[in-house]
Amino acid sequence: MRQAASLLKIETRGAGFHDVTAAARRFLAEQRMQTGLLTLFCRHTSASLLIQENADPAVLRDLERFLERLAPEGGAYEHDSEGPEDMPSHLRAALTQTQLSIPVIGGALALGTWQGVYLFEHRRRPHRREIAMHLIGE
Amino acid sequence: MRQAASLLKIETRGAGFHDVTAAARRFLAEQRMQTGLLTLFCRHTSASLLIQENADPAVLRDLERFLERLAPEGGAYEHDSEGPEDMPSHLRAALTQTQLSIPVIGGALALGTWQGVYLFEHRRRPHRREIAMHLIGE
Amino acid sequence: MRQAASLLKIETRGAGFHDVTAAARRFLAEQRMQTGLLTLFCRHTSASLLIQENADPAVLRDLERFLERLAPEGGAYEHDSEGPEDMPSHLRAALTQTQLSIPVIGGALALGTWQGVYLFEHRRRPHRREIAMHLIGE
Repeated sequence: MRQAASLLKIETRGAGFHDVTAAARRFLAEQRMQTGLLTLFCRHTSASLLIQENADPAVLRDLERFLERLAPEGGAYEHDSEGPEDMPSHLRAALTQTQLSIPVIGGALALGTWQGVYLFEHRRRPHRREIAMHLIGE
Repeated sequence: MRQAASLLKIETRGAGFHDVTAAARRFLAEQRMQTGLLTLFCRHTSASLLIQENADPAVLRDLERFLERLAPEGGAYEHDSEGPEDMPSHLRAALTQTQLSIPVIGGALALGTWQGVYLFEHRRRPHRREIAMHLIGE
Repeated sequence: MRQAASLLKIETRGAGFHDVTAAARRFLAEQRMQTGLLTLFCRHTSASLLIQENADPAVLRDLERFLERLAPEGGAYEHDSEGPEDMPSHLRAALTQTQLSIPVIGGALALGTWQGVYLFEHRRRPHRREIAMHLIGE
């Protein structure tokens, strides 16, 4: 049994989804593990992680619009030091995931056929984001 | 230290909760581990996982109705290729969990007395669903 | 490779956030691990876990108010055996996290600079809560 850890750095282009499935698979492939557990951890509170459909990009657009309505800009927020989209970003992050663990079975991530792993940027402007990756197994 | 992995197959009867607590306990019992970490991973984007109260089934019914109001059918969704309940299913999955990890302590899952583990089917029609189970420990 | 498990007991003072970051760091420090995975698991269905900003407490207050609006008291809930804030507590727990896993890298939790780990009490009255902590690594 052994472990590996790495920091995945991502330059987002502003609000929206950034597919990190290939980067996660690459990290696993480098470690050549057959069975294990891969954990992705987003080191931010205004960006988050989500597993969603990778086939029709309209699913991701609908999801983004849904969260924009659910946690809108222009709400009466106490925290607004970084502008009107600051607090909605925290709310949207709180409703999705900071961390995801994916089993490794038969040398591959146990993702379903239609599942992609996404970094979900909630701020409008581009940001440098970090995902801590941890793998344990053999 | 060792690992075990297995695929749990579930035939849902349509939208609603399917209790997988007993199946998770069975998998743990077969592996006879005292300390460890059990991970359940839902391989779908229109079904999800949730830990909720196992005592009063009204809690689960209220939760289902709450999500039906929060992410309603008949919204103006761009993605509707599989019918009006297609996109709401993705939204309800995104607001709950794709993955859950439960510590194993003293040979048992560290669930609280009133906690059950549920597969949450969001589509109306019955579906074949798969949960990847991974256990590490000793 | 080895494991450690422990039960963190918390007396909440009623609804709101209870910072458990220091307790999690203390548990890790006692185990003196360099690389690993720390899992926190909330053993309740009307309290939950969340990672959010630790700098401006207004973020947590806005988040609490947001969830109070999203899952309000006084809704037409079927389950109300423990009063009007009973079912909203379950809903707010379902929308946040029961479990969080944080990679350990270089002997420290891989939390970002502005991330705190919180137990989120949803009931108005003080409660005794338990978080199961599990650590695997070396």
